[in-house]
Amino acid sequence: MELLATYSQALVAHLENAVIEKEPTQLYKPVKYILSLGGKRLRPVLTLLTADFFGNDYEKAMHAALAVELFHNFSLIHDDIMDNAPLRRGKETVHEKWDVNTGILSGDAMLILAYQLFEAYEPAKFQELAKLFSKTALEVCEGQQYDVDFETRDDVTIPEYIKMIDYKTAVLIGAAMKMGAIVAEASSSCCQGVYDFGRNLGIAFQLQDDYLDAFGNPKTFGKQVGGDIIANKKTFLYLTALNNSTKGDAETLVHLFNINPKDPADKIETVKEIFLTSGAAKATIAEIEAYTQKANTILETLKLSEEKKEKLRAFGKWLMERTV
Amino acid sequence: MELLATYSQALVAHLENAVIEKEPTQLYKPVKYILSLGGKRLRPVLTLLTADFFGNDYEKAMHAALAVELFHNFSLIHDDIMDNAPLRRGKETVHEKWDVNTGILSGDAMLILAYQLFEAYEPAKFQELAKLFSKTALEVCEGQQYDVDFETRDDVTIPEYIKMIDYKTAVLIGAAMKMGAIVAEASSSCCQGVYDFGRNLGIAFQLQDDYLDAFGNPKTFGKQVGGDIIANKKTFLYLTALNNSTKGDAETLVHLFNINPKDPADKIETVKEIFLTSGAAKATIAEIEAYTQKANTILETLKLSEEKKEKLRAFGKWLMERTV
Repeated sequence: MELLATYSQALVAHLENAVIEKEPTQLYKPVKYILSLGGKRLRPVLTLLTADFFGNDYEKAMHAALAVELFHNFSLIHDDIMDNAPLRRGKETVHEKWDVNTGILSGDAMLILAYQLFEAYEPAKFQELAKLFSKTALEVCEGQQYDVDFETRDDVTIPEYIKMIDYKTAVLIGAAMKMGAIVAEASSSCCQGVYDFGRNLGIAFQLQDDYLDAFGNPKTFGKQVGGDIIANKKTFLYLTALNNSTKGDAETLVHLFNINPKDPADKIETVKEIFLTSGAAKATIAEIEAYTQKANTILETLKLSEEKKEKLRAFGKWLMERTV
Repeated sequence: MELLATYSQALVAHLENAVIEKEPTQLYKPVKYILSLGGKRLRPVLTLLTADFFGNDYEKAMHAALAVELFHNFSLIHDDIMDNAPLRRGKETVHEKWDVNTGILSGDAMLILAYQLFEAYEPAKFQELAKLFSKTALEVCEGQQYDVDFETRDDVTIPEYIKMIDYKTAVLIGAAMKMGAIVAEASSSCCQGVYDFGRNLGIAFQLQDDYLDAFGNPKTFGKQVGGDIIANKKTFLYLTALNNSTKGDAETLVHLFNINPKDPADKIETVKEIFLTSGAAKATIAEIEAYTQKANTILETLKLSEEKKEKLRAFGKWLMERTV
């Protein structure tokens, strides 16, 4: 998306120098490595964009944006260990390339490095940013814990699932935007507004991810289509299908989400069929639209020019129409 | 030690409420668990003592002291995973009682909770404390990485070893004291002074730990005597013995530190014998005294009453004469 290109390029230029590869190299090499793997850089770009929209100077928010990116990558390193994931963005995960201990320790260092980046701001702003950061970081840990807990529970409700993705994914998107607004010295109601905007968009974003996992185009979707189904992940699609299916289909679903066939092709086909016939696929699209709409309603209350609001609306639309 | 009892009791009373066991309980239970295991609480007690000595109000430093204790326990959880340690203070380690993933995530949460405790201070103090905390935390990670690196290196020098224990152990003791001084609004030269005092005492403290591991009284020493020898840990004793031994003894040492006999009794006996005959045991005691002396010299420069200096001197003496 053209709107984001400037911020993205500026961020990547600074990312290179955000962490110095010094002694002990075994600690800092993995940090540089994961930061070099690319990705959409969505969160830090949103910090810069928000700072630009509210204060016309995105450079001021660079340290906060880098902190957000470091935190996000810290959480990826530790989550990949917990999920036993071999690949991240098509490359070896840190614990695969090195080992689990290196992943734990380099991740820890990265979380601390993220906090250090806020030191560039004067005390009052430093405290405001660090407070928001800590609150958000703790919620991300709680979200990850809920995600782990849900694996062994068979009574997860849809509100519980929404809370999990809210904490695991959406609050950081909200906080990333709020940090940009804080740096730009936007009013506290605007700070809260962009936070709520980003958070609702974040929930829509994750639901879209869940949807694409089942119904994305294998040619353009970055990950393995059906990955969540193979991993028996109780997503919004699954929980809704379970609620809305016939007894027979529900039993089939529960059975299929308790087995791990060597060739999962049939399982994926059957599950996707139930997702469609139960109306879960449609319901997910409706839910994505509802959260996007919620975000847009909040957008109206912000003190921003119509031009900027339109850009944010277009951004939300683009995010939800992505196929990757 | 009587001097410390007041601080220790006050700390333990607040520790109970420092972390709330809320949902998701799987995240917060391990945090409460490790904090309940006891220990000397040396670091946070030093924060309170320093605040008391410089400002006559240790309660003001309670949040900083709790942050230090949370950070120390965070590092224990993650280190225990890396060391594959089954026991901590005679009880199951977190990753043994739960699992590795729980240990990683609860540790992460604990590090963030430590940062949050500083939010009790006004912005300028918050920033000063958080900056010192981040710098120290990163050094502790670096120290742990050096420790891991040294396991597979056979060319570790004594200065490198001292740097490792400085980072892994001593800087946090220095920082714990400096935080007390910052809260008490001591002059910046006094803040730096107590930091250097604590750091030198911290190195002496760790060297004493190494010494006791080999020559402690099995009846009073908390850990298994000879544990470092069994684990082939290249401590100050080992490195000094290697430097000062006859060629034959040096070869025996290197050989013994490359094997893992089922019954380590003979190995421990032979190694201890070489530690004694090479003069490494004596040299370690001399090094402990040298660092304690360095700490006491710094103590003289501090703006404290002779009575308080004497108490700190006695504390250092007590710390180095401990047998546990």
